[in-house]
Amino acid sequence: MEAFELSKEFLEEFVTQLDLKKEDELIPVLERLFPADIAETFDSLNLEQAVYVTSLLDADKKIEVLAELDPEVQIKFFKGFTREEIALNFIQNMDSDDAVDVLSVIDAEAATEILSYIPDKQDSLYLTRLLRYPDNTAGGLMGGELIKVNINWNVAQCTEEIRKQAEEVSKVFTVYVVDDSDILLGWVSLKKIILAKATTPISEIFDSNIKYATVTTDGEDIASTMQKYDLIALPIVDSLNRLLGRVTIDDVLDFVKEEADKDYQMLSGISQNVEVKDKVWVLSKARLPWLIIGLFGGVLSSIVIGQFDGELQENVQLALFMPLIMAMAGNIGVQSSSIIVQGLANNTIDSSSVITKLGKELMVALINGLVCSALLMGYGLIAGKTNSIMTTVSIALFAVILLAAVVGTVVPLILDRFKIDPALATGPFITTSNDLLGLFLYFMIGKMLI
Amino acid sequence: MEAFELSKEFLEEFVTQLDLKKEDELIPVLERLFPADIAETFDSLNLEQAVYVTSLLDADKKIEVLAELDPEVQIKFFKGFTREEIALNFIQNMDSDDAVDVLSVIDAEAATEILSYIPDKQDSLYLTRLLRYPDNTAGGLMGGELIKVNINWNVAQCTEEIRKQAEEVSKVFTVYVVDDSDILLGWVSLKKIILAKATTPISEIFDSNIKYATVTTDGEDIASTMQKYDLIALPIVDSLNRLLGRVTIDDVLDFVKEEADKDYQMLSGISQNVEVKDKVWVLSKARLPWLIIGLFGGVLSSIVIGQFDGELQENVQLALFMPLIMAMAGNIGVQSSSIIVQGLANNTIDSSSVITKLGKELMVALINGLVCSALLMGYGLIAGKTNSIMTTVSIALFAVILLAAVVGTVVPLILDRFKIDPALATGPFITTSNDLLGLFLYFMIGKMLI
Repeated sequence: MEAFELSKEFLEEFVTQLDLKKEDELIPVLERLFPADIAETFDSLNLEQAVYVTSLLDADKKIEVLAELDPEVQIKFFKGFTREEIALNFIQNMDSDDAVDVLSVIDAEAATEILSYIPDKQDSLYLTRLLRYPDNTAGGLMGGELIKVNINWNVAQCTEEIRKQAEEVSKVFTVYVVDDSDILLGWVSLKKIILAKATTPISEIFDSNIKYATVTTDGEDIASTMQKYDLIALPIVDSLNRLLGRVTIDDVLDFVKEEADKDYQMLSGISQNVEVKDKVWVLSKARLPWLIIGLFGGVLSSIVIGQFDGELQENVQLALFMPLIMAMAGNIGVQSSSIIVQGLANNTIDSSSVITKLGKELMVALINGLVCSALLMGYGLIAGKTNSIMTTVSIALFAVILLAAVVGTVVPLILDRFKIDPALATGPFITTSNDLLGLFLYFMIGKMLI
Repeated sequence: MEAFELSKEFLEEFVTQLDLKKEDELIPVLERLFPADIAETFDSLNLEQAVYVTSLLDADKKIEVLAELDPEVQIKFFKGFTREEIALNFIQNMDSDDAVDVLSVIDAEAATEILSYIPDKQDSLYLTRLLRYPDNTAGGLMGGELIKVNINWNVAQCTEEIRKQAEEVSKVFTVYVVDDSDILLGWVSLKKIILAKATTPISEIFDSNIKYATVTTDGEDIASTMQKYDLIALPIVDSLNRLLGRVTIDDVLDFVKEEADKDYQMLSGISQNVEVKDKVWVLSKARLPWLIIGLFGGVLSSIVIGQFDGELQENVQLALFMPLIMAMAGNIGVQSSSIIVQGLANNTIDSSSVITKLGKELMVALINGLVCSALLMGYGLIAGKTNSIMTTVSIALFAVILLAAVVGTVVPLILDRFKIDPALATGPFITTSNDLLGLFLYFMIGKMLI
């Protein structure tokens, strides 16, 4: 990887030069740094230092740095500017998707005022419109910066238009072809335009076979379409097929990473998107909800087991294998539920074929249940345990494994059917219910057999 | 989203037309389908039908379809061709990264023979070289198709060269600038080339500020660099900084998705990358290892608890709260370990600052432990439980929460330090150890207090 990394030494030196306002030394350093790196230095700068840094950057880099800042840092940073300055120095020049990301972290009243300072009314209208779409939809992910040409033009007119439009579009991947009413007809690659003769009509070289989505399409669907078809950008249209914007793959990569992190945390029982560097109380708060569910489940378990304390008194051996039953019930439940949740997320299953999935999960549970019970019986023989207790535990284990698989499979499918995020069914929730059900089944079987 | 989806009805109709060899009707249908869709139909076709479909496709689409097939389907499909046909009809025309993906699923002997049929010896040498890099490194992710121009040229020469090279490169994002020895000097965007005058020297418009990586760089680092700097393609160089290839963001998106799925499954106790549609025994086999660890842990627990059966006989109430202690130990352990694992994966922490992380996790555990123990004491008061048992359980719970947090934090950090995938420490492994340790601590405290 290229040599540069934000080392402690670099940062100290950088801050010293900032405080001494050594412009001549700072400008070449800043030129060599990428916007994401400059944004990273802001974590260690105070407001005055950060504002001074941006004053040394050219207009393009200034907005790229802003777009890379964490939301909290953006909010802090804006304290150094009036709302009018924010509009004219930053928002106005940003790509619309980045501008909306920034505007959505500050409060609505401030955002509206900032938008009112943007001279181009069409731009501010477009931003207002984008702000209304939820984060996780095509509308929330898209930006308005794209190159479009009219179907009736030729390559020369098209190149001329690209020259004009390209000033505003930082990354050009595809040129979209529209008709006079802005309805999306197809696309033509930059490569084809470079390779074609100037007089060739666009209608001869454009490709009408194009993937697109509407503003309300779910972000997950956008991501899986772009992944499936290897798309670098996906055009977004309104209900009349008019071209409104495009979603680019770098934003989709961020989206996919964020969603994966969220699902991972959900599975591990953390209820908000947190990072190691977050404050102690933020981390505590994110974890407490699931812990309290676990605590509640534990108390319920104590009540369930309390119903069987006669059996326990009589045969204290039963208590020894409670952890085994619980652990297996939990593991099986998490395995089953997570594979269903992942299948739902990746669109490889839908909730319609519940019976088939359930049958398959039961088959898997049957095999694994038989193997585990047989292993446990084998252990009982070798360890010289009394027959009755090991038979009871083995039979109960088998039953619990089947039950846990059913619960793990059915719960996420039901949640999905009711349009609730099935990922809620993973982690502590499924573990807790399986613990309870598993222990109940265990003691019932124990009661019958011993 | 655009209307087309592979429906059952479409597939049935499609297969019927295939069997009747209705070429005239099939060709327009295939033209309208995207390569990924055609690849999807192959799941439902037999070898003869699949070979017939490819005979109707043009050379470009043929290889795109092949690249989209699942590895098992690729292997099945190749049975319809001789090794020479595979080399000449497919491998020769594919992007090098796709070709290597295909070659790496068939056995080494066959791959070598196929490579020997490729007429361009330089191409086959390049592929042989790519085959040597592990899947999860820059070398394994990169392809050789890129556009490079010499620093000494002008825009006109450059455009001419792009015309020539672009024939072979399906997606052009960036033009790389090299010197006479192929050493990477920088880049210039297609946009700049379109906008510049023909006589402008490349040396005047190129940008020497470029991110790149070497062939041995880890895939995760490639992904996080491309994500951080919003790159669409990342050039890859050898140890002498000679340009060897590039990694494109669509491949990185696939890589990130796969890694996230793998980590998710690891956390849920599934040891291989499996999908809902896999066969029952594949699913069973992927889950058994963790279940057997859980079983083993359960048996160990029974031995640990067995040491305290005097206490249990005396006070059977102790058994009632075993599930609570276990559940909390497991949840806390998974929460702590997964946040550390995620931090390590996202490069937001490194294993050097173990003490700081541990201190923070302990603070979080302290807060959550106090809250949970207080809630439990409260429940005891309301439910009118005897004081001694609830005090014991609450104190034990607090201790167990602290212990579980330590284990959950330290284990992944230690694994990472020893270059073992820290994700191994999540899921059943950490749950099992925390169950054991938690129960031991619980009974020790019970023994002392009751």
